[in-house]
Amino acid sequence: MAERFAEDERFAQDAAGRADPAGTAAAAQSVEPGRRCKTFDANEAVARIAYRLSEVIAIYPITPASAMGEHADAWAAEQRTNLWGTVPDVVEMQSEAGAAGAVHGALQAGALATTFTASQGLLLMLPDLFKIAGELTAFCLHVAARTVATHALSIFGDHSDVMAARTTGLALLASGSAQEAQDLAAISHAATLAARIPILHFFDGFRTSHEITKVELVDDDVLRGLIDPAALRAHRERALDPDRPVIRGTSQNPDAFFQAREAAEPFYAAFPAVLDHAMARFAELTGRRYRPFDYVGHPEAERVIVMMGSGAECAHETALHLIARGERVGVVKVRLFRPFSLAHFLAALPPTVRSIAVLDRTKEPGSLGEPLLLDVTQALVEAVASGERPALPRIIGGRYGLSSKELTPAMVIAVLDELGRAAPRRRFTIGIRDDVSGSSLTWDPELDIERDDVSRAVFFGLGSDGTVSANKATIKIIGEHTPGFAQGHFEYDSKKSGSTTISYLRFGPRPIRSTYRIRRAQLIAIHDPEALERRDVLAAAMPGATVLVNTPIAPDRVWDTLPREVQDALIARRCRLFVIDGYRVAERAGLGRRINIVMQACFFALSKVLPIAEALHHIRDSVEQTFRRRGAEVVANNLAALDAALAALHEVTVPAVASSERHRLPVVPPTAPDFVQRVTRLLLEGRGDDLPVSAFPPDGTWPTGTSKFEKRAIALDIPIWQPELCIQCNFCSMICGACSSPCRSRPRTAPAAACASRSVRPRTRSSPSTRR
Amino acid sequence: MAERFAEDERFAQDAAGRADPAGTAAAAQSVEPGRRCKTFDANEAVARIAYRLSEVIAIYPITPASAMGEHADAWAAEQRTNLWGTVPDVVEMQSEAGAAGAVHGALQAGALATTFTASQGLLLMLPDLFKIAGELTAFCLHVAARTVATHALSIFGDHSDVMAARTTGLALLASGSAQEAQDLAAISHAATLAARIPILHFFDGFRTSHEITKVELVDDDVLRGLIDPAALRAHRERALDPDRPVIRGTSQNPDAFFQAREAAEPFYAAFPAVLDHAMARFAELTGRRYRPFDYVGHPEAERVIVMMGSGAECAHETALHLIARGERVGVVKVRLFRPFSLAHFLAALPPTVRSIAVLDRTKEPGSLGEPLLLDVTQALVEAVASGERPALPRIIGGRYGLSSKELTPAMVIAVLDELGRAAPRRRFTIGIRDDVSGSSLTWDPELDIERDDVSRAVFFGLGSDGTVSANKATIKIIGEHTPGFAQGHFEYDSKKSGSTTISYLRFGPRPIRSTYRIRRAQLIAIHDPEALERRDVLAAAMPGATVLVNTPIAPDRVWDTLPREVQDALIARRCRLFVIDGYRVAERAGLGRRINIVMQACFFALSKVLPIAEALHHIRDSVEQTFRRRGAEVVANNLAALDAALAALHEVTVPAVASSERHRLPVVPPTAPDFVQRVTRLLLEGRGDDLPVSAFPPDGTWPTGTSKFEKRAIALDIPIWQPELCIQCNFCSMICGACSSPCRSRPRTAPAAACASRSVRPRTRSSPSTRR
Repeated sequence: MAERFAEDERFAQDAAGRADPAGTAAAAQSVEPGRRCKTFDANEAVARIAYRLSEVIAIYPITPASAMGEHADAWAAEQRTNLWGTVPDVVEMQSEAGAAGAVHGALQAGALATTFTASQGLLLMLPDLFKIAGELTAFCLHVAARTVATHALSIFGDHSDVMAARTTGLALLASGSAQEAQDLAAISHAATLAARIPILHFFDGFRTSHEITKVELVDDDVLRGLIDPAALRAHRERALDPDRPVIRGTSQNPDAFFQAREAAEPFYAAFPAVLDHAMARFAELTGRRYRPFDYVGHPEAERVIVMMGSGAECAHETALHLIARGERVGVVKVRLFRPFSLAHFLAALPPTVRSIAVLDRTKEPGSLGEPLLLDVTQALVEAVASGERPALPRIIGGRYGLSSKELTPAMVIAVLDELGRAAPRRRFTIGIRDDVSGSSLTWDPELDIERDDVSRAVFFGLGSDGTVSANKATIKIIGEHTPGFAQGHFEYDSKKSGSTTISYLRFGPRPIRSTYRIRRAQLIAIHDPEALERRDVLAAAMPGATVLVNTPIAPDRVWDTLPREVQDALIARRCRLFVIDGYRVAERAGLGRRINIVMQACFFALSKVLPIAEALHHIRDSVEQTFRRRGAEVVANNLAALDAALAALHEVTVPAVASSERHRLPVVPPTAPDFVQRVTRLLLEGRGDDLPVSAFPPDGTWPTGTSKFEKRAIALDIPIWQPELCIQCNFCSMICGACSSPCRSRPRTAPAAACASRSVRPRTRSSPSTRR
Repeated sequence: MAERFAEDERFAQDAAGRADPAGTAAAAQSVEPGRRCKTFDANEAVARIAYRLSEVIAIYPITPASAMGEHADAWAAEQRTNLWGTVPDVVEMQSEAGAAGAVHGALQAGALATTFTASQGLLLMLPDLFKIAGELTAFCLHVAARTVATHALSIFGDHSDVMAARTTGLALLASGSAQEAQDLAAISHAATLAARIPILHFFDGFRTSHEITKVELVDDDVLRGLIDPAALRAHRERALDPDRPVIRGTSQNPDAFFQAREAAEPFYAAFPAVLDHAMARFAELTGRRYRPFDYVGHPEAERVIVMMGSGAECAHETALHLIARGERVGVVKVRLFRPFSLAHFLAALPPTVRSIAVLDRTKEPGSLGEPLLLDVTQALVEAVASGERPALPRIIGGRYGLSSKELTPAMVIAVLDELGRAAPRRRFTIGIRDDVSGSSLTWDPELDIERDDVSRAVFFGLGSDGTVSANKATIKIIGEHTPGFAQGHFEYDSKKSGSTTISYLRFGPRPIRSTYRIRRAQLIAIHDPEALERRDVLAAAMPGATVLVNTPIAPDRVWDTLPREVQDALIARRCRLFVIDGYRVAERAGLGRRINIVMQACFFALSKVLPIAEALHHIRDSVEQTFRRRGAEVVANNLAALDAALAALHEVTVPAVASSERHRLPVVPPTAPDFVQRVTRLLLEGRGDDLPVSAFPPDGTWPTGTSKFEKRAIALDIPIWQPELCIQCNFCSMICGACSSPCRSRPRTAPAAACASRSVRPRTRSSPSTRR
């Protein structure tokens, strides 16, 4: 307890800006000097550990867990070995049901086996998971938690899949960041061998699985130090083996089953201590101490949030912010959800707590409360009944973050404010506006607590235009060549290629726990100039922000082509405006439309995160590493583009007054149906989060014919029919997006060049006269 | 509230023996005069309703739900129509996943669709159930709840499958008897149309699905009165239809999913009231009133049990027994588990309650409590927080009945006793002896509360020897030709054909809620004489009980062939002993080994439940109905057996002292391994329930080579090799069980008759000299 107070004290100091936290929970993400780091996402971090500790890896791809299986498959193809020097057998099955069955069989043969999944994939594994747990099998399953499809499918993240598996008897262990995911993966593989309870280790899909951060690596010495050879030998000896024959998988009748089921109970009772022991051992080896529940906050907190997953990082950051302002608040990060350890929970929860908000990232319609809330209520009722706590605190419960909905510090503060009220709502939602059931708490959309020493940049690109790849390379350069911390988060639309991507990059001297979008950026880069016409890309521009636009329009003409809203924003926020014709630089260097190297150079030139010479040096290294296997010409072309980039970068003077008489065009025509005006339009403008609950049909029923209003108009070139060349092959109708309905039928000023199916000419982008 | 007190008063009166309950919960099973009744099991009762109310029935068989699909399939083959005059499409898919998908598709096409499943079958349906619920689809799924396989498979009943589906968003509705299952099935099909929340309606596998009782039928007028035509029309109009095109099954992104998911919340909030409305409408039509929670007990109860399913019937019976003795106890029967209605729960729970035991028929390893306990705790914490209740009662939780383990009145009393202690255990198990974790409550194994006016009979047969069929016919005769109530419960071993079956029959003037084995019977019938040698078949014989033994041994020789233990028991309990060579009667009548008609006649002759002449008349009718389609000869043979039966029935005088020097042989030889001695032996003797938790390996691992100790030795005939006839065809080795290891190699006294493969001679059963 004393130890915890000391750690809390350090948190509070950190919150006051005096020191970086270096205690229990804070240890995650803090990097000790001299330790080997890598900048990657949780999928890669976890796959790396799972691969080193497995002999059989049965996979079936499902977003957002696919990358774990793909990494394992690629590494096996490269003949990379595991900790014991053998190459794991990686086999892709016909479905997740097959993967679970293959793993079950491999485990029964005494192998170390693992798999990766999410969402419906996890549902297909349930029958085997019940058996794997019932047979007390050492096994670790890694889940990039994803929404289970209900009224609609969603590839994004929440805990509805994991919660559907909580009846199986697997232990459930949650990670909130790539660092934690890596560390808890290693701890899980060790603990399951020691405890014989299989573990479902999960982390939030996309937010954690795809967020790139700097992770201090767990090396082989640590893994060797974690795995108990005796426990591994015992696992081998439990194998079904004709030399020591036993039967497993029998059928039992009412006379025997109940007793036999209870016979496993001591293994569950022991599990939290076994896990805590593995966590302590991990701390000895790495300095990073995790516990079944980690508390972050004021040692005498009165209001506490209990939650798990990536949202707890945001709550952690927010709690420190509030403590520095004198508030008595805290956060219990649930790592071990099942088996739920009352003793460890009470040890983590300050005795001063008066009210608790339990946040669940799932919705179980019809339940009095979501799963974590039910467990916390039961735990505290038990604690009072047993005399371990004098009275029941007020307990309220809320849903947040379904399908990767944002959880921001402003929302966390709204929850803590609700806890402080005389009569708080016992059930709520946070992150949406619920004008149907009135469940939602309101929050201050302007509130932002990010520190000034964090560099933040937002990039608007097009799916598959190279923006995301460029940004990933940028983060790796900064993460691996500076002592600072880096975070890259990427918003993809499930429509994938050709839809808008938004990259959020943060760099700073401290661990970054901001698991939400950037609200105020010092740099906004618009790689896809169409975005200027579609959405308010400057909403996040801080006063004095640098704005970079990739545009084929000459620097001296750009200002006049900007819509009035963009001009107004640039002037009001005193932005500096830079332009580059990235397409031209890329094309001249023989890269076609791949502008990533060009834009990356511009970013370093403008952001000044590194001295530009050093940055260019690292980009060159990166180019050589990345493209070497594609041949010298590709490397040379990329280096040429890099060299030409900065010369093509021009600052455009922002005038004192706006001059444009052209406004951003509405993304849907005024003739569009009501639903398209009310709903589709906001989704297209990137403002879907503003839509209230009442905007949506309750059963997922959607009107037909709305996708025509989503025409993405992303072709760089437009075909012009040349009657004198036409052989009526009709190919043009297949590749031409120019005349698809609803065509805006404005005159195209570009001169004709060739027949549609053979040759097309560059389209002048962002010029109103050619926009469709 | 006043109404409830009045009902309770009637319960208490009933408990005091003055009147039969006729209120809320008691209505189930009480039969009004003139109403049409049928004596059948819940599977048939539910299938009948589901068939009448469906147009598409997609099925896949799984024990114990198979019969529902099989009935539907047979009725469709007979071209039976549904309520609207069409024959439902019954289609068997490749698995339960396919059945769920087919149903999902049919529902989206506007059809009324249903399916039936259990256990792993339900797990395979989960992905579709999430979608069916998310799309607010009117649908009712009937589940004969069965254990999910863990350390071992089990075909028997508990709620682990249903609880694994509680995250899907389906409403969960529980029935405790065939009457309730029929009635709630009808209510469910109506309520789901009105509410647009799909319903998972479940009842306990085997205990309810296979228990035969007298059920007051729901006729078509009732069904027509329940189904709201406007709700049905609305279901049709929600169909995907090219004339009114909409999309369902889209993909949503983080901007929209959370809001859209919350948009369904009002449907869940409204559901309990909609269901209660359907229940009220049902009561208007039938007189049987159900509520989301039904309370049975003292109006000022201090100790209350909350539970669902068939066990609640036993608790109901026990509560009435205790109230008549002045105890303030009660039972809340949970019918609507999800959505959990706080208002309805509080309306059912007496305000005087001081302590509550929540009984869950499932185990979720690692949870602080099983699902119903968590919900009840949350409900009561809410009620206190909102001021609806002044203080939190003491709440304890226990597991019972996993895989059809018995729950008896003695166990219910043990739970209520625990509730009365100063410091009750907060978690417990009941029904087993847990010497590993010490979780189990002890109960009085001698305690029995069954009334004297209930006729009880126990039958020991062999799987497929006709005993169960005969008993089913017997119950139907009594149920359908007398004003009384009847119950038949059948214990099958999952080893099926050839293993011991035990039939438990009860007949009485009141509804029978005894959902447990008969502990004291007035009649014990041993159809398989081997049972005398294997287990203590007379354990349940009341003083003065009638004992009927089917044996090929002549009446004057029988006494001397009985083992000493059987003689002692017959004498000590002052039993009357009757014998018949049922095999001989059956064989002479051309029925081969089918002794069912013969034994049925003997039962009626001895039990005197009906005048014997009337009973024989009904058996004749039953024979003619059952066998008519097999031809006149089969009918004639059965009638001949019936006529000959009573003449072959002989009473054997039970002497004053036992004379046998032969004891029951140990079922396993003394040379058997330790595990076989400690565990297998008790399982074979039918005493597996006595085995403590420590007897079982915690992970389901079983020694090999134990089945040889289970040799069932059930062949009626044994082959004797006749060297002078042998042509060395070797067929004998395929059909001969005589020399299989371990052969007990005792001399066979019977003379040789023919070659093994062609002709065999009757084996003299139960004679020690020929037992193997």
